[in-house]
Amino acid sequence: MNFASDNAYGAAPEILKALSDAASGAVPSYGDDAITRRVAKRLGAIFEREVAVYPVVTGTAANSLALATLCPPYGAVFCHKDSHIAVDECAAPEFFSGGAKLVHLEGEGAKMAPETIAAALPAFQRGVHSPKPSAVSVTQATELGTVYSPPEIAAIAECAHNNGMALHMDGARFANALVGLGCTPAEMTWKAGVDALSFGATKNGALCAEAVVFFDNNAVKDFEYRRKKAGHLISKMRFISAQLDAYLEGDLWLKQAVRANGLAKRLSEGLAAIPGISLAVPTQANAVFAWLPDKLAKKLRGEGAKFYDWAGEDGRVMARLVLSFSTPEEDVAKFLEAARS
Amino acid sequence: MNFASDNAYGAAPEILKALSDAASGAVPSYGDDAITRRVAKRLGAIFEREVAVYPVVTGTAANSLALATLCPPYGAVFCHKDSHIAVDECAAPEFFSGGAKLVHLEGEGAKMAPETIAAALPAFQRGVHSPKPSAVSVTQATELGTVYSPPEIAAIAECAHNNGMALHMDGARFANALVGLGCTPAEMTWKAGVDALSFGATKNGALCAEAVVFFDNNAVKDFEYRRKKAGHLISKMRFISAQLDAYLEGDLWLKQAVRANGLAKRLSEGLAAIPGISLAVPTQANAVFAWLPDKLAKKLRGEGAKFYDWAGEDGRVMARLVLSFSTPEEDVAKFLEAARS
Amino acid sequence: MNFASDNAYGAAPEILKALSDAASGAVPSYGDDAITRRVAKRLGAIFEREVAVYPVVTGTAANSLALATLCPPYGAVFCHKDSHIAVDECAAPEFFSGGAKLVHLEGEGAKMAPETIAAALPAFQRGVHSPKPSAVSVTQATELGTVYSPPEIAAIAECAHNNGMALHMDGARFANALVGLGCTPAEMTWKAGVDALSFGATKNGALCAEAVVFFDNNAVKDFEYRRKKAGHLISKMRFISAQLDAYLEGDLWLKQAVRANGLAKRLSEGLAAIPGISLAVPTQANAVFAWLPDKLAKKLRGEGAKFYDWAGEDGRVMARLVLSFSTPEEDVAKFLEAARS
Amino acid sequence: MNFASDNAYGAAPEILKALSDAASGAVPSYGDDAITRRVAKRLGAIFEREVAVYPVVTGTAANSLALATLCPPYGAVFCHKDSHIAVDECAAPEFFSGGAKLVHLEGEGAKMAPETIAAALPAFQRGVHSPKPSAVSVTQATELGTVYSPPEIAAIAECAHNNGMALHMDGARFANALVGLGCTPAEMTWKAGVDALSFGATKNGALCAEAVVFFDNNAVKDFEYRRKKAGHLISKMRFISAQLDAYLEGDLWLKQAVRANGLAKRLSEGLAAIPGISLAVPTQANAVFAWLPDKLAKKLRGEGAKFYDWAGEDGRVMARLVLSFSTPEEDVAKFLEAARS
Repeated sequence: MNFASDNAYGAAPEILKALSDAASGAVPSYGDDAITRRVAKRLGAIFEREVAVYPVVTGTAANSLALATLCPPYGAVFCHKDSHIAVDECAAPEFFSGGAKLVHLEGEGAKMAPETIAAALPAFQRGVHSPKPSAVSVTQATELGTVYSPPEIAAIAECAHNNGMALHMDGARFANALVGLGCTPAEMTWKAGVDALSFGATKNGALCAEAVVFFDNNAVKDFEYRRKKAGHLISKMRFISAQLDAYLEGDLWLKQAVRANGLAKRLSEGLAAIPGISLAVPTQANAVFAWLPDKLAKKLRGEGAKFYDWAGEDGRVMARLVLSFSTPEEDVAKFLEAARS
Repeated sequence: MNFASDNAYGAAPEILKALSDAASGAVPSYGDDAITRRVAKRLGAIFEREVAVYPVVTGTAANSLALATLCPPYGAVFCHKDSHIAVDECAAPEFFSGGAKLVHLEGEGAKMAPETIAAALPAFQRGVHSPKPSAVSVTQATELGTVYSPPEIAAIAECAHNNGMALHMDGARFANALVGLGCTPAEMTWKAGVDALSFGATKNGALCAEAVVFFDNNAVKDFEYRRKKAGHLISKMRFISAQLDAYLEGDLWLKQAVRANGLAKRLSEGLAAIPGISLAVPTQANAVFAWLPDKLAKKLRGEGAKFYDWAGEDGRVMARLVLSFSTPEEDVAKFLEAARS
Repeated sequence: MNFASDNAYGAAPEILKALSDAASGAVPSYGDDAITRRVAKRLGAIFEREVAVYPVVTGTAANSLALATLCPPYGAVFCHKDSHIAVDECAAPEFFSGGAKLVHLEGEGAKMAPETIAAALPAFQRGVHSPKPSAVSVTQATELGTVYSPPEIAAIAECAHNNGMALHMDGARFANALVGLGCTPAEMTWKAGVDALSFGATKNGALCAEAVVFFDNNAVKDFEYRRKKAGHLISKMRFISAQLDAYLEGDLWLKQAVRANGLAKRLSEGLAAIPGISLAVPTQANAVFAWLPDKLAKKLRGEGAKFYDWAGEDGRVMARLVLSFSTPEEDVAKFLEAARS
Repeated sequence: MNFASDNAYGAAPEILKALSDAASGAVPSYGDDAITRRVAKRLGAIFEREVAVYPVVTGTAANSLALATLCPPYGAVFCHKDSHIAVDECAAPEFFSGGAKLVHLEGEGAKMAPETIAAALPAFQRGVHSPKPSAVSVTQATELGTVYSPPEIAAIAECAHNNGMALHMDGARFANALVGLGCTPAEMTWKAGVDALSFGATKNGALCAEAVVFFDNNAVKDFEYRRKKAGHLISKMRFISAQLDAYLEGDLWLKQAVRANGLAKRLSEGLAAIPGISLAVPTQANAVFAWLPDKLAKKLRGEGAKFYDWAGEDGRVMARLVLSFSTPEEDVAKFLEAARS
């Protein structure tokens, strides 16, 4: 019963097979290969426009490289105070950018409102004394498993663009958010004003594969130099690209997200129906946040359940329960049963 | 006939199988898993002492993270002017360290002599005006396919340590150098004074796996923070570790290096016997550097041979021909035949 | 009537004279001169212990160099959300440190409580995923002209030290705080647990002179290299040191602070007595923060008063009025008169 | 007899007086004052075109800030291997730029030839693997007291511009070079293709004042943010500007350079006439480099002469003797007399 994280699970067989298929023969290194080009083409079709695609191996690298491209050393990035870039990456964006400032904003359900961004801006408009507002970063799905609707993203993008900032989306759980919303990839990104996307695959079934996607070639700027200089240009790139290729082929990425989200829904509904348990936020992707009595949390752990306490207060904890593309179905049933008794 | 680089080739079947074997079930992420621990144990046995082991995915990351750990922002790293860290990594060590200086030294066969290092030091001993000498980095095997003997390494280590510097070894082709020398891994590293090692596997059959190895736990210092902050801590670490695990199991790493070096020897001897062709440096690992008449180089390329010109002068080029764990044997024969006619 | 900032005023005649006195003859550069040594001795006497003293020319440099010495690239610095290092230095500490995180904490009167720091810490104790808590920085006097009492500083120091963090004090207005408190320099710093101090002189009568003071030689670490590497080692150091020397001689620094604080008290008391005006915070150093009706603020500006609006709300503004060593006395009287009518 | 450096000497009385004159009253801080504007106007007249002028306090800051503006983190700066930025600034440009590479080139008399730059370029044209050639930096006068003629500068500028690089001039001894050449400031800079200049005043009579000068407003880019973020924006800017203002008024800067260069010429000719002594390079500005027998060097030091050994070989040293705006005339006579006997 491992609900600790979707990255606790392994990799999809289709993706593993793609690695073996890609392994023979000699091909140009550093991304000048056919599989890498095919991934760009696939993503172009998925996003309904030509896109610039750069595979990397971690979400932290994807986010930090994208942000360092969008934000100068003397710039500021506006993000939610609980976002991954704000609290889970050891201040990597600050390092990659050469000292930019991440501005931590409040917001319900780990989501920022455009009004909150707008209200923060005046403090950054005192010339060179303040870091220059350069980018906004939203997480989709968020750290609380909630999602921004396309109109919500569009409103943030409008605020960003009107104030000379670019919009970045941390899509470590892009597929889960997309499936949760039921919209198109284009609607959730460039049609709503997103300039750069960290398109995650690792958490949803790849071994180590993310893609930084730019929707306008002008936004790419010096990204390729930055990727190399940070040690994130993989020599045998075909093996990262092969993961993405298989991930996208035949809608595997969507199928896996449908499965994870479905399990989350089942768990969420099951828990909500148990007296003494309540949901902390609505379940909109593949994570459930539920308030459990301390005693129950302890009991569940005693029976083998793994999960993190996201918060705690007098007598209860907010448990984070993440479902993945390969979490066993029976684990959900077993957890609910244990929670009920 | 692809001799462009060993990273043009794919991955060993044993390593691909290990990925599939590692893929099922839920395990702790970020390196707190059994496979990662097994790799550390294996390397401990290979090096005949306990070692601290940190898997990463590129040689640039391994080198830069190791050097940033050994060398402060205001420090200097002494290296050969043709070394990978000096000319092939877009100044990544300068970035990771926060602005350290790489001092480019001369030396025959891409090797530094301790005397050259010693002679360079006085210019760095003017207090805070000069970067502080902090590390020496040797490449094993070098960019010209030559190797440092253990006594040569020991002499450099002595010079480094006597001057308050640590010794780093870029072992992107560690196995090839080891097989070329016929010594033990311990003799080639810590017994000769090496403090930190970039232990490469990618070029010799892995997909994307290197390990930074420290021979003394005190040298590790803040390496783990640096790895995370640079986006190089892989969440599903088991998949990097599984590559290293299979690479080391049953001496696969040595067998593959023996094969690559053997092909290099065959190619080298074959070329040396052809009138009008001469070796630029002795072939000591898996790369051959040979002077070819321009016309011959053109002809060979016309017949499908891929290789880089490492240098050029009136009427001839220095061809770099790299052999790998999976270069087809017949390609060597075919190349020699074409060169002879 | 310029109350915009204490740095709007010039320099004390005694300090200007010291520059002329120091100007003749040849002396060693970069700080190896008699005046620089005398400053260290003077500060040793003032602080009642041997101290390591490093003159620099800006408060931003003093703060950032001190913090980069105390906090590694992967570290976190806890400070008040309104502190100068947090909002007025274009994220300079992030740049100097190589990407450290400044954690912005709440607190009344621009002061942090140790409980607030303690409450923030757990979020930074998830291994390499969080920046490592490395330093706390307090501003004395604060951006709201309030001061920390020695016991308040000691409580913060205890919290810092118990959690492996050093304590830095931004003393851009050190003299004003000291005079406001009526304690000794030792009591306000190392006796209360301060490890490193930015000792300001510029705002209190120097041209461009601050000193970074370490109370324990072990804390200095690599500060001197960092100062040089950031372009902050002044070649003709005697001219920075001469400013500090004259500043400290005959208690000039205290006399000037007494004057500025006295004017602030007079202005503060005068304003508090006017109906419709109220103090936003108690006046404890050389700055007055008072709520003025919008109409009055406008009128005062119309009559030539210069000051910043620190905040604003329905119908009134919080005016910041800073007094300096050389603000004309009559300006205070004039301002009060205008405010009354 | 102090010939150690021109920065061993103090400051010109005219400049000290300007400080006192600038000291009274309240003016806007951070450079928004009348004196700073006047300096820009003066430099505009001197350079015969509108220029963007930014005062800073050290040559290292001027050079590093200018270079970080011209060269991205992944860029390369081509400079002479003995230049100040290469060996005397603790790798400050690498820090300010975020890890750019300084490429150390050979060249007689501490001067680079355009051919040398051109020959170095191909190694930097392998895509993202090499740092991107972004700037060339020349020192005027050089570290050996030699000067580039305007045509020599123009040839380097052409090479730089043709290859997408900007040209920076480190003019720490700009006045000495100018006087040595007898050309106009415009001819020595923008008319020859210089894009950014570190205009030095400190070594020639100021206390701590340099100006970064851009000849085209488009080249300024984000310089002002960088200056603030590095702690180099002086709050009481009028005091840096006042130094520059007095330095430029009534040609003080030229007069002082004429004096220093004249003394250098006298010393140079005197030494060249002494048997056993020879000049190492022609004396073209305010420094003399002469080969002295070891015994003589020792004797001169015994009699109180201060100077650095720039190089040494069997039985003799290359003495660096720097003359300044206020080196006593009799010191030159005395030194020559001692050298003759």
